[in-house]
Amino acid sequence: MAGSEDAERARYHHGGDEEREGDPGRRPASSLSESEALLDKDEHSSTQSSHRLLAYSDALISIIATVMILPVAHTKLEDDEELHHNLELLLTTKIAVYLMSFLLVSMAWSAHTRLFEVITRVDDCLSLLNLACMMLITFLPYTFSLIAAFPDNILGLNLFCACVMMIGLMQAAVVLYGFSHPRFLNETHTLHKRHILKVILRVPLLCLIAASVSFVCIPLSFVTLVFAVFLPYISQSLKRCYRKLIGMQTAPPTDAVGHYSYHPWEPLSKERLEGFTDGVYAIVATLLILDICEDNIPEPSELKDRFNGSLTVALQEYGPNFLAYFGSFATVGLLWCVHHSLFLHVVRPTRTMGLLNTFSLAFVGGLPLCYQLTHELPQSSLNEREAVQISCVILFLAGFFQLAIWVVALAAGGGALHPYVHYRGRNHAFMLAKLALYPCAALGTFCLASAPGRSSAFVFHLMGVTVPLAFLVLRYAVQAWLALLRLLRSKWEGPLRESPTPYPVTGAT
Amino acid sequence: MAGSEDAERARYHHGGDEEREGDPGRRPASSLSESEALLDKDEHSSTQSSHRLLAYSDALISIIATVMILPVAHTKLEDDEELHHNLELLLTTKIAVYLMSFLLVSMAWSAHTRLFEVITRVDDCLSLLNLACMMLITFLPYTFSLIAAFPDNILGLNLFCACVMMIGLMQAAVVLYGFSHPRFLNETHTLHKRHILKVILRVPLLCLIAASVSFVCIPLSFVTLVFAVFLPYISQSLKRCYRKLIGMQTAPPTDAVGHYSYHPWEPLSKERLEGFTDGVYAIVATLLILDICEDNIPEPSELKDRFNGSLTVALQEYGPNFLAYFGSFATVGLLWCVHHSLFLHVVRPTRTMGLLNTFSLAFVGGLPLCYQLTHELPQSSLNEREAVQISCVILFLAGFFQLAIWVVALAAGGGALHPYVHYRGRNHAFMLAKLALYPCAALGTFCLASAPGRSSAFVFHLMGVTVPLAFLVLRYAVQAWLALLRLLRSKWEGPLRESPTPYPVTGAT
Repeated sequence: MAGSEDAERARYHHGGDEEREGDPGRRPASSLSESEALLDKDEHSSTQSSHRLLAYSDALISIIATVMILPVAHTKLEDDEELHHNLELLLTTKIAVYLMSFLLVSMAWSAHTRLFEVITRVDDCLSLLNLACMMLITFLPYTFSLIAAFPDNILGLNLFCACVMMIGLMQAAVVLYGFSHPRFLNETHTLHKRHILKVILRVPLLCLIAASVSFVCIPLSFVTLVFAVFLPYISQSLKRCYRKLIGMQTAPPTDAVGHYSYHPWEPLSKERLEGFTDGVYAIVATLLILDICEDNIPEPSELKDRFNGSLTVALQEYGPNFLAYFGSFATVGLLWCVHHSLFLHVVRPTRTMGLLNTFSLAFVGGLPLCYQLTHELPQSSLNEREAVQISCVILFLAGFFQLAIWVVALAAGGGALHPYVHYRGRNHAFMLAKLALYPCAALGTFCLASAPGRSSAFVFHLMGVTVPLAFLVLRYAVQAWLALLRLLRSKWEGPLRESPTPYPVTGAT
Repeated sequence: MAGSEDAERARYHHGGDEEREGDPGRRPASSLSESEALLDKDEHSSTQSSHRLLAYSDALISIIATVMILPVAHTKLEDDEELHHNLELLLTTKIAVYLMSFLLVSMAWSAHTRLFEVITRVDDCLSLLNLACMMLITFLPYTFSLIAAFPDNILGLNLFCACVMMIGLMQAAVVLYGFSHPRFLNETHTLHKRHILKVILRVPLLCLIAASVSFVCIPLSFVTLVFAVFLPYISQSLKRCYRKLIGMQTAPPTDAVGHYSYHPWEPLSKERLEGFTDGVYAIVATLLILDICEDNIPEPSELKDRFNGSLTVALQEYGPNFLAYFGSFATVGLLWCVHHSLFLHVVRPTRTMGLLNTFSLAFVGGLPLCYQLTHELPQSSLNEREAVQISCVILFLAGFFQLAIWVVALAAGGGALHPYVHYRGRNHAFMLAKLALYPCAALGTFCLASAPGRSSAFVFHLMGVTVPLAFLVLRYAVQAWLALLRLLRSKWEGPLRESPTPYPVTGAT
């Protein structure tokens, strides 16, 4: 409970003057000067820690990031048709739209995190500005899918540019408002208002150009948009190249990298990253049950005509959907567990890790679709095999990018990871095993499913059942190993400590 | 930043021994005793703060709680039919199913919060148990809607009972596992394992009875289920009545109320309550854009045939949907803001407040539906007026229960609310105004919409636009009032303090 109380206290900021406000009974505000002090304070009582506003924003953005998987998931596959054509249709348009819109919304999220690492306290006005910003961000996937459906029409492009411009202008308004009231600002960093405004306002400006150009030449305006996205990274790399050329120190130590630097080691708030990730995992895990709850209650008339009034027979029809739901929930849940274990040990996340995390999440979003495919298709057909293979690839990539986060964290040096899981740490091998579990299982299933003369879906489902068990086995194998080691040691050294304390040094709670 | 760092540190528990682990460089683990200490610790390095697990659970449960609004929202209303019949159909079945399933999932969430206020640290095994529990909770709305669709069929009832029984057994397993390892337990409370197990296992037992009885008499089994839900409250009230009869002290002070007491003042984790609320608000705010993204991209063939190839004309068709989305997003966002302001000042939430919050959220979940109704129906019809009236009622109830939370918090006495918003606090009136804004606006709109000879939808939309402005006006009116007061005082007393410090006593950051 100590942790949560700390957190609560930390979140309960009234302009930071809670220490003085702790006991109201002592201050009856009788004299005039004291009443004035109260007034002074009250003017700032509107200032709040931004913690919950950001948690809400993360929840909103994570739902919106995964929204474009819905049209993919709801594409009905005809049983008798070849999957080839359907899959091509799916892959080339809807999945591409999903991945792009996921990355797009993640970028908006990334910009949002940058902004609110500088503005760390808010008031009602900033809350409302942020909500307006959120509303526009939630509209981005729609405008993007309009572009994808009608690439020759400038309406989608212009709507998209208008949205991005308004988001940019609102962010600029947040910066201006925040810098005009220093109590909103992050106090630990040196901040350059002009630099931040320049970075933020560059995007709407380029969007304005893209929108104007679209009336003349649409491809050119797409190029401008892509340029707008990568401009900070390009300018950052150019600067670094320039510095290298003139012989300055090129790699600053991790601590010195500030916000809005677009450096690969630029810090990212762990809380925000976890909030966004949890949101995506939660919505992805429940994606299939949303459909089940909506569609899989048979109509009373249908029940009578088709199933002779037997509800059990009717529900057997929906069996594959339930299996798909349980399978995808378990897989998404376990991947979340791996992510949780990993970020328990990541002390200082960087933007690069955030990017890899986004890639991982984008593929996690595809998992419900995989499970649906592998359960809906008739067994032992060519279609089923392909569906299983695609599922394995998606699962592999989702796990692989998680592993990549760890590799990057290891490469980032001492401060980024907890020593437990660093090269010499006791949990190093265990963490590696956890992270490698899904990529290895996916690879193995891919190979087995590709072998002819076997039900590939059966192999896939077997994998789905064994992996959770492997999780527990891994944990208990390590515990048994440690217990054995300790037993050997205590035999060797004699009973140094007979009765270990039940609470292992719990600190000041 | 200090707040979030505190929170991060608080969440980074390795069995509580981080102080010793802070600087790994000082401990090369060279000698045997030190290495043994490492082993001791490593056995507990699997213990983690449950913070993120609970956040993820809250996100999952909040999505599932609102899932049954989807079938309601997707019920297509025919323009030419009378809304009366449609609404009756909607109200009597689907909305009732939605509200009941929302309350049901909220109860599961409530049981989950009780459990994890006792078990405050977790390891991988508890994580997996919790995920399995979550999977079953997400299945509850489906079983419940089966019961609602086929009340005469015992299959739905038995599925429901089976789910609840498995959830209960898993919770019991969590308790047994947690109590067998004292490092998982909340250290600040006196805990009674047998009492908790008794409370938890009573529910599966009653469900087993209900399931057995269902083969004989279905109504009796429903009565058993209702009894199972209210048993703790009944036994608690009976105990209190008994105590009153024999003349014992009946109302223990707020601090003494423990977990699993089912007392109205039983504490509820603020973090959990906020997490669940944020999740519900986030999913409700984005409910309409989910549909828009999926359905409102016209097919290229349709575009050619119906709209002469003009995308602009095609999108005008969808105009009402966009308006409904923006309207519902703004309303939900502002209600979230009010909730945020309220809970910024609620220091110690109780179960009663949690219940009122659940009621408020259940009606918030109906808001997207309202906005859809008021925008889709033809103007100035009888249907439109009824839709607006229903919307006003839902909005009123959503706001009213928020106000009720505050009233209960005021009634709970000194410790529950921050002094700022208590009776004498400066923000008392302002908070009241904020909380009363939506109920009053809804009441006013209801009366205006009921008056004949006016477009009731227009009045409703006008309300949607003016309320956000009223928010800002409220804030600035208060600020202007304070500035005026201060000006008067400084004139009166002479310049005591000429230059107020820009940072108002920010504490040790």
